[in-house]
Amino acid sequence: MLVEAPILGLRALFFDVFGTLVDWRSSVAREAERILKPLGYNLDWAAFADAWRAEYQPGMEEVRAGRIPFSKLDVLHRRNLERFAPRFGLSLSSDVLHELTLAWHRLDAWPEVPAALARLKTKYLIAPVSNGNISLMVDLARRNGLPWDAILGAEVAGDYKPKPRVYTAACEAFDLAPAQCMMVAAHSSDLAAAAACGLRAGHIARPDEHGPGTGERAPKVAVDVAGRDLADLADKLGC
Amino acid sequence: MLVEAPILGLRALFFDVFGTLVDWRSSVAREAERILKPLGYNLDWAAFADAWRAEYQPGMEEVRAGRIPFSKLDVLHRRNLERFAPRFGLSLSSDVLHELTLAWHRLDAWPEVPAALARLKTKYLIAPVSNGNISLMVDLARRNGLPWDAILGAEVAGDYKPKPRVYTAACEAFDLAPAQCMMVAAHSSDLAAAAACGLRAGHIARPDEHGPGTGERAPKVAVDVAGRDLADLADKLGC
Repeated sequence: MLVEAPILGLRALFFDVFGTLVDWRSSVAREAERILKPLGYNLDWAAFADAWRAEYQPGMEEVRAGRIPFSKLDVLHRRNLERFAPRFGLSLSSDVLHELTLAWHRLDAWPEVPAALARLKTKYLIAPVSNGNISLMVDLARRNGLPWDAILGAEVAGDYKPKPRVYTAACEAFDLAPAQCMMVAAHSSDLAAAAACGLRAGHIARPDEHGPGTGERAPKVAVDVAGRDLADLADKLGC
Repeated sequence: MLVEAPILGLRALFFDVFGTLVDWRSSVAREAERILKPLGYNLDWAAFADAWRAEYQPGMEEVRAGRIPFSKLDVLHRRNLERFAPRFGLSLSSDVLHELTLAWHRLDAWPEVPAALARLKTKYLIAPVSNGNISLMVDLARRNGLPWDAILGAEVAGDYKPKPRVYTAACEAFDLAPAQCMMVAAHSSDLAAAAACGLRAGHIARPDEHGPGTGERAPKVAVDVAGRDLADLADKLGC
């Protein structure tokens, strides 16, 4: 039996990635331990991941505000790492800093994500619209089996979310009007920015994103659909 | 038994698409007949496809020379169609012109391509580096089962091959040096331009691209590898 998509005219789904599709916190903590423990460091690895992530928005704000030219997220991650690493007593070679920066290319998807994306792809065009760069997205796709139609997002747009250009560039790449596209994210701020550009909004709960009980259990803004996870969202979109 | 890749350090393969991976001539002829015959037109459909393709390089040259801003290939295909259609006695509505322009989204791959690409993907990152726009590439990938890691090429670079920026932007998107990347094409001019940027070159014979016996049977420039078709190239790259 064919189930009609409940949102008329919806053609493409754009996905936030960090937090929404992949568990950056556990993965970065694991990678940091793998790389740094053999060098004699013994840190609170989750705190290390949190400290790195805390530099994320300020780093991108340099680009959004036009103070530095667009630089891909790998470059910002490396710069941010060098900024906060001394607080953890780390003194690392350039090679180790590079290897550590690539931790963000080795993040694991939340368990239901690959199968749910494959279901959603049967009915919709699917692409990441993340602040992560293209090579990072490709590595995550290969690692986790994410069957993207294309890699869109910050590097293609030349700016960082929540700047409107990132959302509108994604719609234009697929030759679609904003109302034919839905941004899917676990972060209300991302959805609000997409909705301001005319896109639909789909929320996923990720209550443990920054550790148990820290993430959004429900959207804080009006959305078109909200799911307990991506499988639930796929159910609600008729896939 | 693992076969070592014969080209040291090669990490990514970039593909020309029109002619190299898909048979644009038969497909456009078929689509034109499907759309125009019911309107009472009876043309030499292959000649119609050839006439459209003849406008291809002059159309892109407007962008390459900086006379018009970058416009995606769909826009140029539409403009080119309106330019030569009167020569075939066609007087078409805007809707029909639009539908006809989308013929280029419905091209069929040469028969060995999908399976050969899947083999190549086990060892290399793979992406189209075509002058076709992102939505066109996505439609061809869905139609033919082309398992791209990412869609690169003209729209991402903001210019058209053979301008160097298109090749170097693709390498940069994958964080690779040009020597770690190979351009694969059935056209020596494309390979020469890529090689001038430091990329490796892989040639595929498509002797029937513009009709029987019209295409390149062998490269006219020095290349790193040449295949009878994409399956043969995959064999030669140890996949």
